Amino acid sequence: MTYCVGIKVNAGLVFASDSRTNAGVDHISTYSKMHVFEQPGERVFVVLSAGNLATSQAVINALRREFNDPAGPGLRQVRDPFEAADYLGKLSYRIQQEHADALARSGVSAEATFIIGGEVAGSTHELCLVYAQGNYISATPETPYLQIGETKYGKPILDRIIAPDTTLDDAARCALVSLDSTIRANVSVGPPLDLAVCEAGALRVTRRLTLAADSPLYQGIQQGWNEGLKRAFLDLPRFDWELGG
Amino acid sequence: MTYCVGIKVNAGLVFASDSRTNAGVDHISTYSKMHVFEQPGERVFVVLSAGNLATSQAVINALRREFNDPAGPGLRQVRDPFEAADYLGKLSYRIQQEHADALARSGVSAEATFIIGGEVAGSTHELCLVYAQGNYISATPETPYLQIGETKYGKPILDRIIAPDTTLDDAARCALVSLDSTIRANVSVGPPLDLAVCEAGALRVTRRLTLAADSPLYQGIQQGWNEGLKRAFLDLPRFDWELGG
Repeated sequence: MTYCVGIKVNAGLVFASDSRTNAGVDHISTYSKMHVFEQPGERVFVVLSAGNLATSQAVINALRREFNDPAGPGLRQVRDPFEAADYLGKLSYRIQQEHADALARSGVSAEATFIIGGEVAGSTHELCLVYAQGNYISATPETPYLQIGETKYGKPILDRIIAPDTTLDDAARCALVSLDSTIRANVSVGPPLDLAVCEAGALRVTRRLTLAADSPLYQGIQQGWNEGLKRAFLDLPRFDWELGG
Repeated sequence: MTYCVGIKVNAGLVFASDSRTNAGVDHISTYSKMHVFEQPGERVFVVLSAGNLATSQAVINALRREFNDPAGPGLRQVRDPFEAADYLGKLSYRIQQEHADALARSGVSAEATFIIGGEVAGSTHELCLVYAQGNYISATPETPYLQIGETKYGKPILDRIIAPDTTLDDAARCALVSLDSTIRANVSVGPPLDLAVCEAGALRVTRRLTLAADSPLYQGIQQGWNEGLKRAFLDLPRFDWELGG
């Protein structure tokens, strides 16, 4: 499976993803699900992908081919992140249709979902979730994060921490905690973890990390979070009967 | 929807459940999902239910009718909690079949799942999850808790806290935190919360609470947990770039 999360705060955007893919339990591979499209100072997009790996690779390959051509269509031409999400959605839907009949006969879904966020010179920074059907929704101050893949285990901490005025560093840390909770609960989500931060107005990726399972930062966050949760648990109020009431 | 959790530790059993049921978003009701069958000093069973409300009510009503008859079959006669789970499973499957065709024509599922735990004089205390198909699995030292309904949001804290040597009071507190995380994430899970504790060997329910949304204990746990998580988050290690590295 997969877990990816994008966060939009006033200060910019945060993207985080795991790297495990599986087709059944005996066909497990490692693929980064984070893809950066960057013309520094002009435009930046980060795309996260979940679902059918062949579909998502075909979509990313097409976007990359177009982006490398200065006259190409696609992410190099769109005027803002919403146009980018719309373009990605149409491309993804078209690619899914190519193999949909053959896949359906094998009982396999061609569907893929994406998170795309970024900024174009003159636009605002925006974050969108593109459905398999090609339509999209965007993050807002009331709903400042979007998730794809195995979303439930990592949602509670996002709900408690993320708000429009959260700093980019705190949002990035929260994304890593959200990923860690998911990795602990679902064996089909796993490291290395990819993290990217785009400061609003910078028009480039301003921080980028790939954290292996044994990296000191990831291990520090895992251990610190585990100990912090246990302390929080021990501090909870007692039942009346524990107080001798 | 529903969220119910049962926990088996060396010291006994803990049961917790929410009380919200829904059929669509505009037909929301409150029903306790916790049902106690008790002959103090002889035997005790606690049953938690999720799924089709008509099925689970029919099952509980049949169990109750039998249990009230000193010569009746069912939970009054079984020799241990595993026999109780098997009996409940067969009863549930039979009841589902009665209306399965009519429900299928309306596109509705008759399925219900149950957690049943307890103890019979001379047996050990045990906890089982009864599937809609009538078969069951039981909790073990490696897997000391079982969940039904909306299980994912409340799982991470159980994984971190619950072990065979956890005290009954800590297990009960953890069950309430697990319920609270689920209630925050899914509007179809809601208070009041039912909590029951059966100390091993007591052969009765030793602690029983129903917590409304405005009860001081529930509010104290909600607030304490929220603040504790935020403290744990603030204590996490910083990125290199935050340290001026």
